[in-house]
Amino acid sequence: MAADGAPADWDTSAAALDAADPLAGCRALFDLPEGVVYLDGNSLGPLPKAVKARMASAVQTEWGEGLIRSWNSAGWVDLPAKVGGRIGRLIGAADGTVVAADSTSVNLFKLLSAALALRPGRKKIISERANFPTDLYMAQGLAGLLDRGHELVLVDDAEALPAALDGDAAVLMLTHVNYRTGAMLDMAGLTAKAHAAGALTLWDLAHSAGAVPVDLAAAKADFAVGCGYKFLNGGPGAPAFLYVAPEHQDSFSQPLSGWFGHEAPFAFGPDYRPAAGIARYLCGTPPVLSLAALDEALALWDGVDMAELRAKSIALGDFFIAAVEALCPDQGLELVSPREGGRRGSQVSFSRPGGAYAIMQCLIAHGVIGDFRSPDILRFGITPLYTGFADALAAARCLAGILESGEWDAPAFHARAKVT
Amino acid sequence: MAADGAPADWDTSAAALDAADPLAGCRALFDLPEGVVYLDGNSLGPLPKAVKARMASAVQTEWGEGLIRSWNSAGWVDLPAKVGGRIGRLIGAADGTVVAADSTSVNLFKLLSAALALRPGRKKIISERANFPTDLYMAQGLAGLLDRGHELVLVDDAEALPAALDGDAAVLMLTHVNYRTGAMLDMAGLTAKAHAAGALTLWDLAHSAGAVPVDLAAAKADFAVGCGYKFLNGGPGAPAFLYVAPEHQDSFSQPLSGWFGHEAPFAFGPDYRPAAGIARYLCGTPPVLSLAALDEALALWDGVDMAELRAKSIALGDFFIAAVEALCPDQGLELVSPREGGRRGSQVSFSRPGGAYAIMQCLIAHGVIGDFRSPDILRFGITPLYTGFADALAAARCLAGILESGEWDAPAFHARAKVT
Repeated sequence: MAADGAPADWDTSAAALDAADPLAGCRALFDLPEGVVYLDGNSLGPLPKAVKARMASAVQTEWGEGLIRSWNSAGWVDLPAKVGGRIGRLIGAADGTVVAADSTSVNLFKLLSAALALRPGRKKIISERANFPTDLYMAQGLAGLLDRGHELVLVDDAEALPAALDGDAAVLMLTHVNYRTGAMLDMAGLTAKAHAAGALTLWDLAHSAGAVPVDLAAAKADFAVGCGYKFLNGGPGAPAFLYVAPEHQDSFSQPLSGWFGHEAPFAFGPDYRPAAGIARYLCGTPPVLSLAALDEALALWDGVDMAELRAKSIALGDFFIAAVEALCPDQGLELVSPREGGRRGSQVSFSRPGGAYAIMQCLIAHGVIGDFRSPDILRFGITPLYTGFADALAAARCLAGILESGEWDAPAFHARAKVT
Repeated sequence: MAADGAPADWDTSAAALDAADPLAGCRALFDLPEGVVYLDGNSLGPLPKAVKARMASAVQTEWGEGLIRSWNSAGWVDLPAKVGGRIGRLIGAADGTVVAADSTSVNLFKLLSAALALRPGRKKIISERANFPTDLYMAQGLAGLLDRGHELVLVDDAEALPAALDGDAAVLMLTHVNYRTGAMLDMAGLTAKAHAAGALTLWDLAHSAGAVPVDLAAAKADFAVGCGYKFLNGGPGAPAFLYVAPEHQDSFSQPLSGWFGHEAPFAFGPDYRPAAGIARYLCGTPPVLSLAALDEALALWDGVDMAELRAKSIALGDFFIAAVEALCPDQGLELVSPREGGRRGSQVSFSRPGGAYAIMQCLIAHGVIGDFRSPDILRFGITPLYTGFADALAAARCLAGILESGEWDAPAFHARAKVT
């Protein structure tokens, strides 16, 4: 099926790389359907096997038998901090600086309001036009609610971010790894530039946590948010997380001031008094079942060496790029992710003007699951815990076959795609 | 064990009432541990048996096998509206007026900001000091964030609410059934008074949905929120819900403007454009596993006649009050719930100055699970779907035994309580 070159060489390479992979054993920790190459773990991570027993136990034993007592006896009340601690270890955040709560969007609202309050004389929120849209939407919503002249300044080219950090910049709000291209920003460098300009930083780690090494403390980041259902494999719509640097935690009382962030929630007093530390960034009662799934999914990271993960992520991305470019020549594909592994997160994206959506549907119909991102992006998540080099090769070959045959553009495919 | 009277008469009464109960069969729909009388379904509803299979399927089939495809193929993307529709049928809300989302606290923030925006010249949020604290905290958080002189006016006696509705009242924000006493407010009457004063209404149905008949449309309520984990039995921290009257839905774009509320979330444009209708009150990605549990728990209401539920709730509450008062004379218990069933939600609370906390711990140790609410309240949820008259009698007898023996105040109990 390969478009050119010697198929056996690709197979030999993939087999050798898989044989030398120190993380190869991790795949057995996941339930993955037969016949599927899953390159969409950056949209929804697959099911860690251990989660099945944990969920059954959370439902039957904790809820069914423990009932209300499980808030204490099963540790439900401690889950936001416990899960936060587990995530913290993956992103360079000390205990007591991360909690799991709400959605990424809601957490961003909390922290952006904190950042603006800490820079009361400044009106600009600096971001990228290419940032994940919900981050921009939440900033628009907060600015509109405040109605005090805050402005969302969107930069078209990340290179221009430092120049946008003028004396009116309150906060630099960025996603560390871009959701479309996988391009990774220099967190430490941009944070230093923001601080030099008197601004704070708010980082979205949705495509970073569990994907690339992150060291929030070393980067001196002020605030961060991120999501539990991508590389952390916490399940569909898993609770999100937030990070607040220790020096900011008690300097602001965030406006989503629900009882879970109260100093004494069971005193039931009529006045809000924020808890000390990171707990004040909680709001309402957390979704315990979803949080239990995320907690269990995070346990498997205890045995993962992040340096090994990163090395495999880069090697796997490099291999997939090489295979696609060799096997799919002259098919209109253009790499939009950074070619240099060190500047790339854990995904590879190609643009393919005309047909990208149909080509991805065709790939999915063949069991190669990536996703389409508007307007013309074929996006492939690179997830070293459960993806091998032979998988990447199979995906590249499948893509080549679809492009060569033109089946993505054929009436027969479209008729079949509607049925499945 | 009974303190006075003829024990056999109580047993005979309970047996007759249970035998005539049209809802007696519903108990078999729930998993309840042996040896427990569960009177805390107003804090956390018990496990509906059908949820176990649904959760296993959501984890294994939808997440594990369907992976990202399940957002469409398993209907995850439609769950907020589907679950909202099921809740709507219990609270007199038409399709398209309710969605499940976030926590009660976060939803209250959305709707209170809507109410204040729709009454821009008015500065007062009118509520009760006895309202559930997180509602007050969220109002304080929003008022502080807006910093435009909004004032939370707390009335000590519900009778004084109409007088507080002056020309500066923007919104009347109340919980329909009080969490401590179970006292139920007149939703239609108070809404009419608020409207006559030019104010809007925002009702918290946390202790109403699935507990008492509610007709939001008939009461002309403007906004409502509520929770999924009490009488709706959706599981610990189940997603909450919100209601917006049709005439208000498109008149305001709520500030927690995440991508799930966007007109075209997958167009990934940089500007927020709210969806038409109730969907704009969504924010971030919902916790699907928790939402699936709630969805399944709601299915059992299809077979429940709300008039029968209410009749049994009142009868069960009346019976429990009578039994406690007869079996526990001169023990310092005072009924703080309305004696008149029609003014009471689905709970019965007694104050017991001195010892209420220890007495409840003792009840729980004996398998009678209610809860303590500060400062001196013994609170008992009345949940007709799975509680019978014999259960209520057993609870009253257990309380009588504890009070007569004084074991709640004995060193032996406290030593034992620490162990369990």
